[in-house]
Amino acid sequence: MNYKMMTLDEKFRALEADNAPGQEVRQGLGDLKVIMRGEMLDGVPVDFSHGDVDAFPPTPGSDAAWEEGFSKGAAQAYTEYRGAAKIRKGLADRLGVFTGRPIEADSELIITPGTQGALFLALGATITTGTKVAVVEPDYFANRKLVKFFGGEVVPIPLYYKDSQSEKGPDLNRLEEAFKSGTKVFVFSTPNNPTGLVYSGATIIKIAALAATHDVTLIVDQLYSRMLYSGESYTHLRSCAVQPENLITIMGPSKTESLSGFRLGVGFGTPKLIERMERLQAIVSLRAAGYNQAALDTWFQEPLNWLENRIREHEAIRDELLRTFRAANIHTASPQAGSYLFPQLPPLSVDLHTFVRLLRYQANVIVTPGSEFEPACKDSIRLNFSQDHAMAIAAAKRIVKMVEIYSR
Amino acid sequence: MNYKMMTLDEKFRALEADNAPGQEVRQGLGDLKVIMRGEMLDGVPVDFSHGDVDAFPPTPGSDAAWEEGFSKGAAQAYTEYRGAAKIRKGLADRLGVFTGRPIEADSELIITPGTQGALFLALGATITTGTKVAVVEPDYFANRKLVKFFGGEVVPIPLYYKDSQSEKGPDLNRLEEAFKSGTKVFVFSTPNNPTGLVYSGATIIKIAALAATHDVTLIVDQLYSRMLYSGESYTHLRSCAVQPENLITIMGPSKTESLSGFRLGVGFGTPKLIERMERLQAIVSLRAAGYNQAALDTWFQEPLNWLENRIREHEAIRDELLRTFRAANIHTASPQAGSYLFPQLPPLSVDLHTFVRLLRYQANVIVTPGSEFEPACKDSIRLNFSQDHAMAIAAAKRIVKMVEIYSR
Repeated sequence: MNYKMMTLDEKFRALEADNAPGQEVRQGLGDLKVIMRGEMLDGVPVDFSHGDVDAFPPTPGSDAAWEEGFSKGAAQAYTEYRGAAKIRKGLADRLGVFTGRPIEADSELIITPGTQGALFLALGATITTGTKVAVVEPDYFANRKLVKFFGGEVVPIPLYYKDSQSEKGPDLNRLEEAFKSGTKVFVFSTPNNPTGLVYSGATIIKIAALAATHDVTLIVDQLYSRMLYSGESYTHLRSCAVQPENLITIMGPSKTESLSGFRLGVGFGTPKLIERMERLQAIVSLRAAGYNQAALDTWFQEPLNWLENRIREHEAIRDELLRTFRAANIHTASPQAGSYLFPQLPPLSVDLHTFVRLLRYQANVIVTPGSEFEPACKDSIRLNFSQDHAMAIAAAKRIVKMVEIYSR
Repeated sequence: MNYKMMTLDEKFRALEADNAPGQEVRQGLGDLKVIMRGEMLDGVPVDFSHGDVDAFPPTPGSDAAWEEGFSKGAAQAYTEYRGAAKIRKGLADRLGVFTGRPIEADSELIITPGTQGALFLALGATITTGTKVAVVEPDYFANRKLVKFFGGEVVPIPLYYKDSQSEKGPDLNRLEEAFKSGTKVFVFSTPNNPTGLVYSGATIIKIAALAATHDVTLIVDQLYSRMLYSGESYTHLRSCAVQPENLITIMGPSKTESLSGFRLGVGFGTPKLIERMERLQAIVSLRAAGYNQAALDTWFQEPLNWLENRIREHEAIRDELLRTFRAANIHTASPQAGSYLFPQLPPLSVDLHTFVRLLRYQANVIVTPGSEFEPACKDSIRLNFSQDHAMAIAAAKRIVKMVEIYSR
């Protein structure tokens, strides 16, 4: 179908969000009783669709920073659309150090309403009708939807992440092929959402070089790059020697730092694209909420050992979840960073969406179907395991039990 | 030019935001010394580009509501994309009473990041490549930009608002003509931004009837409808007996209530469009910041007499500003509601943009050029007079002085 000819109805059908994380409350459960096998599985409800900011609370001092912002009044309420200059300066310094290349606060960084906001602006600034965009599968579910919304054409790039696959990462041959045949934008997340795969240094260097050669704009979603597990290493694309002409890195404090309720994110990179992103922000929502921006002053300057402890606690949950699933022969790649797990279920007697609804109805467990991340995926579920440790393990055991009940 | 063929550069040129309110800090002032006549005019800086939330602080209890939301944790951080159910319920009840027609909380209302966010979603849900959209001139500057961004075609409708014009309101003949020749969406603000004109009851009823007859979707921006001056009356389009099939009303607490730093707004109306708006929000910024949503519980239930006092204080500033400008023969229509004033300047020796920059450089006064609201406007400036009373009058006197200096 030619996207240009899509009606609004068709356009919004492509944005269907009922299976998106957090939207489960809008799904009906009425007909499940007929399908259900066995008894209800008791247990405290666990919502793996997003992290639990009660189990892992927001950065210490983030609420005090908000209150200080509020008390500053007008100066904090009405910032430039790209965000308050002083806050941008601090962020640019700290993010420049973290990502291995200096950031010019005035021209190379924009504060956005969440990392989602940064992604929307970055893709809106680079995609128009007919733009070919390489999108990894599986990857964050909004990438594909955004490309379609802006009238672009999705060029799928397979990701190898399973334990059975020896060479991990995106298919670089397919990527080069795509770049050679007119792909103008490449958007991807590393650590990958939903698998937790971290692209290797060699892969990142190769992507940067290919983009430079073929004049492809890169949008790199590094939302989870701070939560890196022991023994793993991370390569920031903006630190590579060879740089593409157009590169936007996006990040935010919604995950590792649990500041999701503040809706804060950043995009940083090529000034021309940051300028476009600000112009778009001016008509989308003006700016990230002024008082909330003040909480960014806590980011990358948390109390001593705060980050280390948070990583250690998540690693312990990860390890026990992996043991739980693997003991039940549910194949699950080990996430190298972040708090997503992407178990692959054995053949079941019900389809994936029905199983996910049964999990919610019968076992008090909310997960996200893998098809949100890769349309063809019919056998995997995503868990955000930033949860109370004991409750997460208990819920995982209920998932295992449910897989047994519904195994074909 | 066929919009489909626009490059991204052209598309973003149309979104140029350097003269938008609040972005003045990004304009250069270097060459003004050469043009400047006379002396610098001393005075405390006044920024009329937006309201001063220090002079008129946020609704009492709004910060406490935020803190309570924060302390609720996960339940408040992760709401449905359309906003927390309980908060929507309260809003739907109160806004239904205010606007004269009940609102179904579950299907007819969405909470957005600011009224700007609601406008973006409403237009995104109704405009695609080639959609003809009637846009009033002058009106809120983002309307035209949004239509262009979504690939629509602007059909301009003149607004009569000057004291010299006997029949006030949009040109209804032009509007009907537009509806008859394929216009599918009509977006407008009442009270009008930038003039403060309130569309009469007869006009609103006529617009509703025309839209019903010609199957036109109405997007009505009622941001300032609460701040209604003495002797004025307001007709809510959603209260008319004849209703168009598709109607979205947008409002928010950023202006009268000074909650701009929270970035909160609402859209309410036709369920099908609310559903689309939520799907779009899911890829734009997920939701209005969760903790901030809690501040909406203060909206339309402020302390006794709070609104009356706020209106009375603004009316006093309005009246003195009108006297100041009119005494200097600067024609200024009297706003019936809201805090915008749109004085028409006499012929000057410099163009409007230069005069606006001179005002900032020489007289410490920031205003917005009329061309932001109507491209052909070369002689009017917009002031948001939600400011400290004495400082606003002093700044208005400096504007009068500057008009004298630069008169042709």
